[in-house]
Amino acid sequence: MIILNGGSSSGKSGIVRCLQAVLPDPWLAFGCDSFVDAMPAKMQASDEGIVFAPDGEVSVGADFRALEAAWMEGVAAMASAGARVIIDDVFLGGAASQKRWQRALSGLAVLWVGVRCESAVAAGREVARGDRIQGMAASQADVVHEGVFYDLEVDTTHTESLVCARTVAARVS
Amino acid sequence: MIILNGGSSSGKSGIVRCLQAVLPDPWLAFGCDSFVDAMPAKMQASDEGIVFAPDGEVSVGADFRALEAAWMEGVAAMASAGARVIIDDVFLGGAASQKRWQRALSGLAVLWVGVRCESAVAAGREVARGDRIQGMAASQADVVHEGVFYDLEVDTTHTESLVCARTVAARVS
Amino acid sequence: MIILNGGSSSGKSGIVRCLQAVLPDPWLAFGCDSFVDAMPAKMQASDEGIVFAPDGEVSVGADFRALEAAWMEGVAAMASAGARVIIDDVFLGGAASQKRWQRALSGLAVLWVGVRCESAVAAGREVARGDRIQGMAASQADVVHEGVFYDLEVDTTHTESLVCARTVAARVS
Amino acid sequence: MIILNGGSSSGKSGIVRCLQAVLPDPWLAFGCDSFVDAMPAKMQASDEGIVFAPDGEVSVGADFRALEAAWMEGVAAMASAGARVIIDDVFLGGAASQKRWQRALSGLAVLWVGVRCESAVAAGREVARGDRIQGMAASQADVVHEGVFYDLEVDTTHTESLVCARTVAARVS
Repeated sequence: MIILNGGSSSGKSGIVRCLQAVLPDPWLAFGCDSFVDAMPAKMQASDEGIVFAPDGEVSVGADFRALEAAWMEGVAAMASAGARVIIDDVFLGGAASQKRWQRALSGLAVLWVGVRCESAVAAGREVARGDRIQGMAASQADVVHEGVFYDLEVDTTHTESLVCARTVAARVS
Repeated sequence: MIILNGGSSSGKSGIVRCLQAVLPDPWLAFGCDSFVDAMPAKMQASDEGIVFAPDGEVSVGADFRALEAAWMEGVAAMASAGARVIIDDVFLGGAASQKRWQRALSGLAVLWVGVRCESAVAAGREVARGDRIQGMAASQADVVHEGVFYDLEVDTTHTESLVCARTVAARVS
Repeated sequence: MIILNGGSSSGKSGIVRCLQAVLPDPWLAFGCDSFVDAMPAKMQASDEGIVFAPDGEVSVGADFRALEAAWMEGVAAMASAGARVIIDDVFLGGAASQKRWQRALSGLAVLWVGVRCESAVAAGREVARGDRIQGMAASQADVVHEGVFYDLEVDTTHTESLVCARTVAARVS
Repeated sequence: MIILNGGSSSGKSGIVRCLQAVLPDPWLAFGCDSFVDAMPAKMQASDEGIVFAPDGEVSVGADFRALEAAWMEGVAAMASAGARVIIDDVFLGGAASQKRWQRALSGLAVLWVGVRCESAVAAGREVARGDRIQGMAASQADVVHEGVFYDLEVDTTHTESLVCARTVAARVS
């Protein structure tokens, strides 16, 4: 398994698509975006679910955590059943988020990858994307890495997604 | 768990969104579309992956089957871990497809729902959607139900998604 | 030119795609959705632009009206230059909205089509689509038709998009 | 008016969204993508329309050219009616494509902007986007600029979209 962690608009999705292209074996890709899409629409406006504030702050509640825990178990089971899996996530809780994954994935080989991007550059890319609430990139850029352990880190500030992906792929035997 | 099976453009996704809206508890929704999205793009043009022929025929290969089996294990693990899960799928192999799910989900309570739609009506909705290869709806309308067992069936030919969803929801205690 | 007017989730887009499929000549399709997409993102949260209230009410301001007037002139010029054009719009102002189009299109042959859908059915389809603010369908279902003149009307409550499109196409020589 | 020309995956859309964000007045944005979306789906697989070959080559036919000419007239009329308009296009025919726009826009003030990106970098971003046919970026990177006159050029190879947009915006009084 490969787990990429980085703030919004740091370039995780681009790296994931490049990884799927350059890795010779087929890898499945899931992430916090596809997980949120799987939730009922009504949970995206509920304190028990996930709330995207107009200033870019994201907060999650008890229902979100409960479903997320089950989803992590499911991802672990896919990997245990033989699937190669890439996850891209935003560790809103830093080290605590990583611990949640570690608990779910115990016994599985995981490559932990930090995806960095300078806050101002990520904020600019957020404007260029046009489909995200302004402010998420800046508010998440640093906090998601606090206390998190990585096997390797890439930085998209001055490095293209495909180049970052090749660096990650080189670590996957 | 709830598993909906029906051909392309039979209205499964609409029913799923309505189910998530009307069911009081939060249900996660996954399906063959989100699974295909999780695969590498290059598998969508490979005989080992999944091939969408210009006439609407869909065929899958060995790599697809291997990842699918692991994905089904993952879905089962999510449900075992306490998540309520709705799956919408297209049983291209009819009874054989259902057997694959049954094997993965053994021990779990599943509500099997058939989503019917008259072939000509589904083909018309395929034109109206505009994002599907013409011919999928007609080629799948009947074959996906062959030999499949259901707890209940709904028919979107003359019944709205929300009404179908309420019929399904009434069976979920 | 063909102009379709109807409330949100009344089925206009589906009819447009079917019209483009069944009409032998190539027709360009534009509409209020593509117009809003062309505006700066910041206008979608501004009183001068367009505001989508959480209850489904939509209100537009002076900047929106100014750009809309220029856009209507542009659509008229495309038709004058020989393009066949289908417009789908939501006449939030009823007869006043139609008058705006009539002024822009003076001298051009226009087929005015009303797209009806029972309010409760449109509201249900809004839930099934999952990408619209709940309440738009119900709040717009009737008001958009007030005082509006049509060459023909279709009703998607019990009639498929493709069938409605064929009815409209039959009026285009 | 502002017209941006560059190959596929050179970063035009990102610059457009940033321009709409940084320019104080509201600007409408249209482009070859929204124009192709406006065409009937059946024209995207027709020699008379537009054909995207599996190797990334794009070719257009007579019906495409006829509709495009009318569309350009429409864009000109919007600008004449007072709208500020940003166009992003891919000049597949180089200087000949520019001449088509010049004819349609005669009498209007236009800022011509070339959007460059090194071919290999654009090809890598094409992989990272995942929604484009591989090969378009490389095949278009240079040919679209052949014989084209610009008021200014930006290069996204090492410069962020937002920075490029500010350079362009500085030229709009």
